[in-house]
Order: sequence, then structure tokens, then C-alpha cells
Amino acid sequence: MSNVTIIGTGNMAQAIAGIVTRGGGSAQFLGTEDQGSAVTGEIVVLAVPFPAVREVIAQRPGQLDGRIVVDITNPLNFETFDSLVVPADSSAAQEIAAQLPSSTVLKAFNTTFAATLAGSVGPLTTTVLIAGDDTAAKEQLAAVVRAGGLTAIDAGALKRARELEAVGFLQLTLAATEKISWTGGFGVVA
Amino acid sequence: MSNVTIIGTGNMAQAIAGIVTRGGGSAQFLGTEDQGSAVTGEIVVLAVPFPAVREVIAQRPGQLDGRIVVDITNPLNFETFDSLVVPADSSAAQEIAAQLPSSTVLKAFNTTFAATLAGSVGPLTTTVLIAGDDTAAKEQLAAVVRAGGLTAIDAGALKRARELEAVGFLQLTLAATEKISWTGGFGVVA
Repeated sequence: MSNVTIIGTGNMAQAIAGIVTRGGGSAQFLGTEDQGSAVTGEIVVLAVPFPAVREVIAQRPGQLDGRIVVDITNPLNFETFDSLVVPADSSAAQEIAAQLPSSTVLKAFNTTFAATLAGSVGPLTTTVLIAGDDTAAKEQLAAVVRAGGLTAIDAGALKRARELEAVGFLQLTLAATEKISWTGGFGVVA
Repeated sequence: MSNVTIIGTGNMAQAIAGIVTRGGGSAQFLGTEDQGSAVTGEIVVLAVPFPAVREVIAQRPGQLDGRIVVDITNPLNFETFDSLVVPADSSAAQEIAAQLPSSTVLKAFNTTFAATLAGSVGPLTTTVLIAGDDTAAKEQLAAVVRAGGLTAIDAGALKRARELEAVGFLQLTLAATEKISWTGGFGVVA
């Protein structure tokens, strides 16, 4: 099973660590202040808000090279909750991939609220949608997700992150306006 | 209960008519060739593919004025299944609204496959997400949806059609690549 490094300490970081450990993998937790600790995971999850990603990358020159880097962000304008801060024809994932040309960047976990990563969303097993341009890397992450008791679906190329981020955006607006709860959201019926 | 005119004869047109009649409303079915029949519904569902919408509107000058017009389209490039044919920062619904300044345009039914409009997606009651700038119009459509046994959620302003169309796009790509079936898709857990 893959070793997974998780950078971040929030709800999503903890929930993703839970998936890894349930599946028998080892999770290395690095706060954004732990700049002295070297990254050891084959998979590195950037479990920080989108505005913090650039700094995390800058703090670790070369350390993410050759690794699978997972972007989980929803790049909302959190002041207005009415738009994204990335260009309409792009995505946070594609912007991060451009900053990490020697890493394999995947988009995942941005359409699943933290609470649902414990296993289910309503009556459904939670599905993690994974986008990326490297099939083997997607399979490696999917194996971690499945070992942790969730469903994983390959959602296509990294450019599909635009649509995944739209799903995440919509889901956040529905929760913020109390149309759904933070334990609910979109579930996938195969 | 509202009278609903449905323009189109495909699976979605029939499934939406089923919702209306289950709820005790009356559905007027107009094929795209029925140009001689006047529109009678307070709500008019354009149940045709996006490329056909412009012609439907052109065929009925003034007939849609003052009515609630429901856009259900997913404006995919169906040759590539890899992009939308509307600008990245817009949506089919917003483009249609610009063509119908005297109508109240709503986006709905584009995130629900026809089969799920019979009632459920997996173990979940099917949710119809409705976007638009007129709250009363959204409520009127939501009442039809709920009377027909489904759940309706107000997904926000018409600009949220961009995100709804991204959900629909993603869902279509997942079905086309057999990651999900045409009876499945995204369900909403409140």
C-alpha cells in the first residue's frame, strides 16, 4: 500500500488520513509549518486551501518532484461565494500542475465533504472522483481510496478538474445556503 | 397546478411529461414540427438538444413571452465529448435567456438522466436542481416537480447554470465511459 504524505491539519487532512490508515497504509502528517520535515510519501495530498497551495509549493523546492500530488481544493471566492478565483476555462488543478512540471498532479476529494470520507453520504458509499492525465497514478490513488472503504471513479483527464471544481463549488453553495447539510452532498449512483 | 407545455418528443420530454401528469397537472406536448399549435402552458420546457433551441425560439416569435421557459440542455460538443460549445464563463441557459428577454428562463433537469425522473436514482429520491433569477418562477416549477414525487432544490441564480451544466457534462462523460449507468448518476443527499 502507498505511503501518503498529507500537508495540512484541517478536517479534510484528518479525514483523508483516516482513509489511508483504515486501508492499512501509512500517513505522514505535515503541518504547513513543518518545513523541516522531508516529504516521504509517494502520494502527497495538499490538504490546504487553494490560496495556501502556492506557498506550500514554494516552501518545498524539489521535494514534490517525481511524486503524485493530489489537489483537493475548491478555489472559491470565499468573500462572495459566487465565483471561482481561477479562469473560467481552467481549474486550480491545472494551475497547480503548471507550477509542478516534475510531479504528477491529480484532482480528487474536492466533491466530498470531510464528514462523508468516513464512509458514506446518506445511504450511499462515498465516491471519490479522480481526474488526471496519468492512469497509473490515478489507479494508485484509487487503490488507497478503495482500501479505505470508499468507491473511486476515474473521472477522466486533468482538464475535467474544471467540472469537478464546478461540482464542488455548487455543493458548497448548497451547504452554505442550507439546502443540504455538511454531512450530505452529491453521491454517485453507478 | 401549473399547465406545462413540453416542446420535444424524446426521452427527456416524455419523462418530464410523466412528472407533470403524476402530479395532477396537464402537459401539452408539442413536437418541434407542431408550429401550428399555440403554446398554452405557463411553464414551457424546451426539451430539445441545445443546437435545436435557437430554431424552436425562432419558430415561435412572441409565443414564449411572459412565460417560464425551462432550459434542460447540456451543451456538449457531442463529437468530442470533451468540451462545451458555450463560452467557459457562461452557460446555455444564460445564452437562451439573452434570446428571450421577455421570458423568465430557468435551468433544470440537466443533471438528471431521463430514467431517474421516474422517481429515484439508486436508493435516493431524484433531486431536480433549479437555477434562475426569479424566485417565484423557481417555486412554481419546484411545485410541479414535488407534486410529481421528486425533490426540488433551488440551486441559486441563473448564473449557477454554469455549474449545473458542468455537473451534467461530467455525468454524461461518466456514463459514456461506462463508469456509471444511464439509470444512475449524481444523487443529492440533503
